[in-house]
Amino acid sequence: MSLSRQQIRDLRRLQQKKYREEERAFLIEGVRLCEEALAAGAPVECAFFFPDGMENPRARSLLQALSGREIPLQPVDATTLAALTETRSPQGIAALVRAGETGPFSPAGNREPLVLAVDDLADPGNLGTLLRTAVWFGVKSLLLSRDTVELHNPKVVRSSMGALFRLRIHEGIDLEQTAAAARSAGWRLLAAEAAGGQPAHRISGGGRDLLIIGSEAHGLKSGLDQLIDLRITIPGSGGVESLNAAIAAGILLYQLTGSH
Amino acid sequence: MSLSRQQIRDLRRLQQKKYREEERAFLIEGVRLCEEALAAGAPVECAFFFPDGMENPRARSLLQALSGREIPLQPVDATTLAALTETRSPQGIAALVRAGETGPFSPAGNREPLVLAVDDLADPGNLGTLLRTAVWFGVKSLLLSRDTVELHNPKVVRSSMGALFRLRIHEGIDLEQTAAAARSAGWRLLAAEAAGGQPAHRISGGGRDLLIIGSEAHGLKSGLDQLIDLRITIPGSGGVESLNAAIAAGILLYQLTGSH
Repeated sequence: MSLSRQQIRDLRRLQQKKYREEERAFLIEGVRLCEEALAAGAPVECAFFFPDGMENPRARSLLQALSGREIPLQPVDATTLAALTETRSPQGIAALVRAGETGPFSPAGNREPLVLAVDDLADPGNLGTLLRTAVWFGVKSLLLSRDTVELHNPKVVRSSMGALFRLRIHEGIDLEQTAAAARSAGWRLLAAEAAGGQPAHRISGGGRDLLIIGSEAHGLKSGLDQLIDLRITIPGSGGVESLNAAIAAGILLYQLTGSH
Repeated sequence: MSLSRQQIRDLRRLQQKKYREEERAFLIEGVRLCEEALAAGAPVECAFFFPDGMENPRARSLLQALSGREIPLQPVDATTLAALTETRSPQGIAALVRAGETGPFSPAGNREPLVLAVDDLADPGNLGTLLRTAVWFGVKSLLLSRDTVELHNPKVVRSSMGALFRLRIHEGIDLEQTAAAARSAGWRLLAAEAAGGQPAHRISGGGRDLLIIGSEAHGLKSGLDQLIDLRITIPGSGGVESLNAAIAAGILLYQLTGSH
């Protein structure tokens, strides 16, 4: 049994942000991303695979793992698979994943040592890389401002390499309000500053740190900027204006989580 | 006077790697990248601009700077400009830049404290970000292995934000041979390792360091791998397999160039 035209149309609509938000669902593609979703216990609803593209051992054991979890497996032809996904050379499998419902972020109740907040980041590859980096350094919760690129954008999902399944991500956050609430609840607010801040090498994690990553182009919005307790400067310059936001975030996470 | 069809055809061919390599030239696009090229003294041969798109003060002063350097300025219509460039919404100006001739890398003669080598990096955005990061941390020379993505790929150029104009970049390097020569000449060879290496926080720059950044997917090739003097591990994991190559490079550059 194959997919009906209506089913294909419904799935294809998930290439658009509007429908992903309406349905609270998105498609992931490729063996690796499906493996990551399963390993992290993400709510995979069903998978669509092109049998001829899934004959290597790794792909087969993924299919076994999916059916072991009683996730419906739908064989499709190569054309259908390509139609469901955005990439030019589909990778044999795609899966429909339900977007998690994270609920509000409560700064008073949260006891994690370091939470990351992302303000107004537009580039999807950058956000995906940032998620992957955050997981590497043990971050559990992450806040995304309303004006940050959508979490389930296919490029974010791909470049996160599955990291989005391992984080508690609060989307659509009013960061100014949340940062103010966090500050009142005893959190230290940190942000990178291109020049003039505390040298990064001297900073240590403080226990309840909210690290805010802003857009490279505009910096933090003024309301948010004036809440910052600790401005951190990564030494350098050499003729470039700034570091990429994900690189700066990686360095600050490395510094804040390091043992010194 | 506008461009002839033949001229447009010749310029458009530079969208292909083959012709960029043959002509040792490439096109850059946008006010910012042209500014960066000028500021770094890159060999800009001529510029093509759409007059209606260059009416803001910043664009005008770029045009003045270009003509101040006696760089030929060719007005073109919006369609021609779009044809020359790859992006959907051309930014008012493009310029033809001659690729620098860097010559061979001589490990015995080089006195820089830290040189970066890139092995088999496939993603253009990653390479561009890495170049930008290298410049930030004061790197002057950079080696690219033969199997690394082409330096003048438009995505590399864009994501480098002009950093490629500020580095001495040796392309098409046989890294195994060069690394062996560098080692014989007293350089220390460093590479990141996902687990089991020296903890990154304890590493300092050694004065003549060749930091080799490998592909995230495959790691270093065995011949190169066995030359490494110091393997460095960035602590972390949290369920992701590895850090993005540019992020790892950024953290190691930060660590090696930092004052401790």
